[in-house]
Amino acid sequence: MTVETAEATPGHAPERILPSFIAGDWWAPANPQKIAEIHDAATDALVCRVSTDGLETSRAVDYARSVGQAALGQLTFHQRALRLKQLALHLGEHKELLYELSDKTGATRKDHLVDVDGGIGTLFAYSSKARKELPNSNVIIDGGVEQLSRDGSFIGEHIYTRLTGAAVQINAFNFPVWGMLEKLAPSFIAGVPTIVKPASQTAYVTEACVRLMVESGLLPEGSLQLISGSARDLLDHLDYRDHVAFTGSAATAHMLRAHPNVQYEGVRFTAETDSLNSAILAPDAVPGTAEFEAFIKAVVQEMTVKAGQKCTAIRRTIVPSEHVDAVVDALRQRVEARAVLGDPRDADTTVGALASKDQQAEVSQAVQRLVDAGGEVCFGGPDASTGRANAETGAFYPVTTLKFSNARTPEVHQVEAFGPVTSVLGYTDIDDAVALAALGGGSLVATVCTHDPQTAAEFVRGIGSHHGRVHLLDRDDAKTSTGHGSPLPHLVHGGPGRAGGGEELGGMRGVKHHMQRTAIQGTPDLLTGITGVWHRGATAQSVTPEAVADGSARHPFRKSLAELRIGDQFVSGLREVRLEDIDAFAQSTGDTFYAHTNEEAATANPFFPRRVAHGYLLVSWAAGLFVDPAPGPVLANTGLENLSFLTPVTYGDSIRVTLTAKQITPRETDDYGEVRWDTVLHNQHEEIVATYDVLTRVAKRMPDWAQ
Amino acid sequence: MTVETAEATPGHAPERILPSFIAGDWWAPANPQKIAEIHDAATDALVCRVSTDGLETSRAVDYARSVGQAALGQLTFHQRALRLKQLALHLGEHKELLYELSDKTGATRKDHLVDVDGGIGTLFAYSSKARKELPNSNVIIDGGVEQLSRDGSFIGEHIYTRLTGAAVQINAFNFPVWGMLEKLAPSFIAGVPTIVKPASQTAYVTEACVRLMVESGLLPEGSLQLISGSARDLLDHLDYRDHVAFTGSAATAHMLRAHPNVQYEGVRFTAETDSLNSAILAPDAVPGTAEFEAFIKAVVQEMTVKAGQKCTAIRRTIVPSEHVDAVVDALRQRVEARAVLGDPRDADTTVGALASKDQQAEVSQAVQRLVDAGGEVCFGGPDASTGRANAETGAFYPVTTLKFSNARTPEVHQVEAFGPVTSVLGYTDIDDAVALAALGGGSLVATVCTHDPQTAAEFVRGIGSHHGRVHLLDRDDAKTSTGHGSPLPHLVHGGPGRAGGGEELGGMRGVKHHMQRTAIQGTPDLLTGITGVWHRGATAQSVTPEAVADGSARHPFRKSLAELRIGDQFVSGLREVRLEDIDAFAQSTGDTFYAHTNEEAATANPFFPRRVAHGYLLVSWAAGLFVDPAPGPVLANTGLENLSFLTPVTYGDSIRVTLTAKQITPRETDDYGEVRWDTVLHNQHEEIVATYDVLTRVAKRMPDWAQ
Repeated sequence: MTVETAEATPGHAPERILPSFIAGDWWAPANPQKIAEIHDAATDALVCRVSTDGLETSRAVDYARSVGQAALGQLTFHQRALRLKQLALHLGEHKELLYELSDKTGATRKDHLVDVDGGIGTLFAYSSKARKELPNSNVIIDGGVEQLSRDGSFIGEHIYTRLTGAAVQINAFNFPVWGMLEKLAPSFIAGVPTIVKPASQTAYVTEACVRLMVESGLLPEGSLQLISGSARDLLDHLDYRDHVAFTGSAATAHMLRAHPNVQYEGVRFTAETDSLNSAILAPDAVPGTAEFEAFIKAVVQEMTVKAGQKCTAIRRTIVPSEHVDAVVDALRQRVEARAVLGDPRDADTTVGALASKDQQAEVSQAVQRLVDAGGEVCFGGPDASTGRANAETGAFYPVTTLKFSNARTPEVHQVEAFGPVTSVLGYTDIDDAVALAALGGGSLVATVCTHDPQTAAEFVRGIGSHHGRVHLLDRDDAKTSTGHGSPLPHLVHGGPGRAGGGEELGGMRGVKHHMQRTAIQGTPDLLTGITGVWHRGATAQSVTPEAVADGSARHPFRKSLAELRIGDQFVSGLREVRLEDIDAFAQSTGDTFYAHTNEEAATANPFFPRRVAHGYLLVSWAAGLFVDPAPGPVLANTGLENLSFLTPVTYGDSIRVTLTAKQITPRETDDYGEVRWDTVLHNQHEEIVATYDVLTRVAKRMPDWAQ
Repeated sequence: MTVETAEATPGHAPERILPSFIAGDWWAPANPQKIAEIHDAATDALVCRVSTDGLETSRAVDYARSVGQAALGQLTFHQRALRLKQLALHLGEHKELLYELSDKTGATRKDHLVDVDGGIGTLFAYSSKARKELPNSNVIIDGGVEQLSRDGSFIGEHIYTRLTGAAVQINAFNFPVWGMLEKLAPSFIAGVPTIVKPASQTAYVTEACVRLMVESGLLPEGSLQLISGSARDLLDHLDYRDHVAFTGSAATAHMLRAHPNVQYEGVRFTAETDSLNSAILAPDAVPGTAEFEAFIKAVVQEMTVKAGQKCTAIRRTIVPSEHVDAVVDALRQRVEARAVLGDPRDADTTVGALASKDQQAEVSQAVQRLVDAGGEVCFGGPDASTGRANAETGAFYPVTTLKFSNARTPEVHQVEAFGPVTSVLGYTDIDDAVALAALGGGSLVATVCTHDPQTAAEFVRGIGSHHGRVHLLDRDDAKTSTGHGSPLPHLVHGGPGRAGGGEELGGMRGVKHHMQRTAIQGTPDLLTGITGVWHRGATAQSVTPEAVADGSARHPFRKSLAELRIGDQFVSGLREVRLEDIDAFAQSTGDTFYAHTNEEAATANPFFPRRVAHGYLLVSWAAGLFVDPAPGPVLANTGLENLSFLTPVTYGDSIRVTLTAKQITPRETDDYGEVRWDTVLHNQHEEIVATYDVLTRVAKRMPDWAQ
């Protein structure tokens, strides 16, 4: 049944069945019965045919769990992240192909930037963030160590390890490239093989993107599979080891969530569904302000980009009652001046077609329901012209604004017209505006347009827990804002209630969605073994200044990354702090704070016995005690973290330092890496004076100039 | 229908209907039709009757959302945490009352320590951790700031704000006190009002505990309500604003999860269900080792505490095939030597009764299913004696161990005997042991008994994502371990798949389960207003050394917490770093690292132009530039966080420092608080040299000795 599809090159042969990529091969049904025909949104020409008749979806799940898991498991987080960057570069070189195909979806070239370039940008962002923020290993530590016994022999912490199943990603029709890549990036970095199921309507763009990635040779075997069409019985084969991320309508999300394997077998299910997002014009943002202008621009932007087919688009424009008409007028003017409907291949088109005739019919029906519920069409609507765009052959719909005299009309908070449509609602005061926004029953995003921090705080306190994202717009960020409707790789995308109750993206949060958080408890030695990070109290390979001096041991600073191991430790001797040292340090640094210089005030201070050494003196001396000064593989001290001063040091006390290699993070693309050193200062009574991590860069091999 | 229940004092009047606490009043049905009778587990005597006939559950939900939300909203995280400590102290004073009632549940006095003292301890732990780890406000910031524009005018981050509904907590019969308090602690700190629904069988203990808390006067109005009996139509009134945390059987969890409001209205649902937890004896832990001994103790402990009625108990004892018989023998010897079944009120009883005759019958049936599937009873079982404990009147069941010649018998991985029962399974190698543990389909916890870090790592890599917690046992933590079966407030409790797919506890993670994570995007000023934490780039009230010197402005170090505001800022002048300064610093500190002392090597180093100043010199000088030295409200520098050195400083360069009050955290119980200062070093070219946070303690008012 497997067919070689050299002839199925994207963009050609509209009669072809769009192939799937299953278990390492391109596949299409030989004699399909159930076939969907996909048409160009603007011209109605046949683009391709879609069918997965006869596909055994269990093959894909089995392949992901076996071959995909094994291949991805051979790479670390950083190595997988680097693959994503290489994939992004490869897609960037071929993006014209994706643009051309995307023209058929009704989207404009400007829209393609959101989908194609936005998707590629997400890969770059994830690649970069993962290599900065994750260890170069396969275990993420979450939070701090918990002391569970007084003697330190029993400790606890949390780790993330990858799920052992598949990441099934079911995407919406409106972003065939971004929709895939924004879900693929985090699952790929986590090390969980992905099975992508795009919406049939625009699956040919996704298929082309997958083909480019497969042809690049960069994908580990089994790390990505594609189901071009119905997912059939895919969910029947999933359990708690697997993760399903769905984007689309609330109705489909409900159906999937009710699947027995989600209900009873623990399939991890997350949904991002369209919601009735709002933009709120705060009381201070009156007509004539820069905020008002930015608000109007934002609303029109969200109505027209992708012809309003964005799950984040502004469906409810919530403004002070007295400004409803001013807002409607300003929206009308801007739409009239800027919105030109047409075939996206026409140069002056600014608003493309909806994705299909079906979508066009759905938007028409939704607008009619809003009108029937009392909505007044201010401009656009069922009877308006689409200009030179032929709404008979193409799936065009006019840019439309309604208003409601009763802002609490249930339909305006529940009925979504998934097109270039918004409704303007008036509010009386901030509490009322918050209540209106919350009537959406949970949304992906709200814009609050205000220049006043206290107003912003009041709004966010009110609407925060009803939203996955709140976008604050004012004169100062109007130019630099990435916009109401744009999910960013850095920030969580998703929202409670109607928005699906899920979370995607959010930087490394998105990676962790594909991992299990597990508490681990045990000795420092065992937790060191499990995490690859040295834990205080664990066995160390300790050397002393004497052993270094007589040549019987090597200082850890003399070891390159090729030789250094976690647990390599240096224990200094004691150095006494004299009053004249404190005085001299105060003098030379200028830090004459009374705790170091005024015996009476220092003694009166509740935390000090008398004058004490500067914390900065202690960490400076500690460096003096632990460094090995000669040129060597240690390249730089790049920082210091979590410094706590625990016991004051007064004159007459002595300090010593223990420095232990805690975490080693070789870089994939440089000849050095990061080494984190656990650092503890003790006094002559063996009390802990201070603890911190010293961050350094260390060369992978001894540099020539240091030999 | 509301009745005053002065006569319903706990421990008396077995005929009474156990009251509920709804909307601020004690309530019991006047003429109930459907009544459950609750009997003493050991003696079968009537303890009380349970009914919620006629209870309007919507009243509880409405009261939580209105009165409870308002009252909790008036307190900060720290204030709520302090209430928890006061509640814990109050309960501690009255715990004998709870012990006495608990005797009727079949549990021993030792078991009460787990339930009553464990519950009180959880309140203390949450109180303490919250005041250490959370801000003293109502917004938690999650992770770092994301730069979303080059000029810094548009930034993003994540915050948690509390859910605006109710926390509905449905608990199991086995821990009537701990089960309530471990769920209440995090929801209370989050600021979400709780509705507790204990299991009817032991609800009289929970009721007594709630009564003590209500009588203490410490609970904000509406913050805690109690449904003593059936929850009736409670879920019909919930939506995405509410959180349901369920503990109990997988079957009940499935039923609740299928409720339309969970399916379609976004009710946040988490479950912690019994699972078939395992303990694994690693290949190195052979008979004769300290690990083997610790393993046997742990398994017997989990079989006998609470008569094995713990969702975390060890149902599957997975050991090397060649040691199955040695393990069974050792278990038998320890059980024979230690396990004395009986009425918990008898002094020498070590194993109490199951909670009810129903439970006794269920355990019998489950053991029979295991036997029918091929399990061989090694000791205990249906025909064994319960000694002097009368299994006819009391719900006693003998301590029982089975073994299976086929370790892959499905029933042993699926059928849970919720009593003093375990099954011993043999494995061939580590992969086999991992596969057997995973056959549980997701568990709360596994113990791995090994002294070898690499073996521990191999096991955790294999079983981690199938478990919520992994407990590592060896000779070094055998004495200090808190045990396989004990969830701790610090660590996540819950597990994937069969274990319910939920998470509870885990320190502040548990608080966040009752909050919504929201991405916020905007200007530094607006994000400062929303979070109450100053963001770099936001407006500051800046003072210079000159203004301080001429008396026209006050240095921020001269302001007590009563006067200090976030955004109070000090901007120093420039100070030049000369080569002799670097030399002198190297000399005095002993830090003669080549980058500061060896011109040739420093220049060869890829990151430095030539010899550079020590990072420690820079931060020491910065302190010299920013401190106001006279005695004042600043009490101590307690630490430093997130120090990054970004631009090297060589001789001839100058540095200046900008210090800004970033976060102010007054303590509830001390006359000082923590102030975090954003600190930035610039060079003479306005490049950023270093960034960090300085942590200080500052007095609430100017101390007498500093005036």
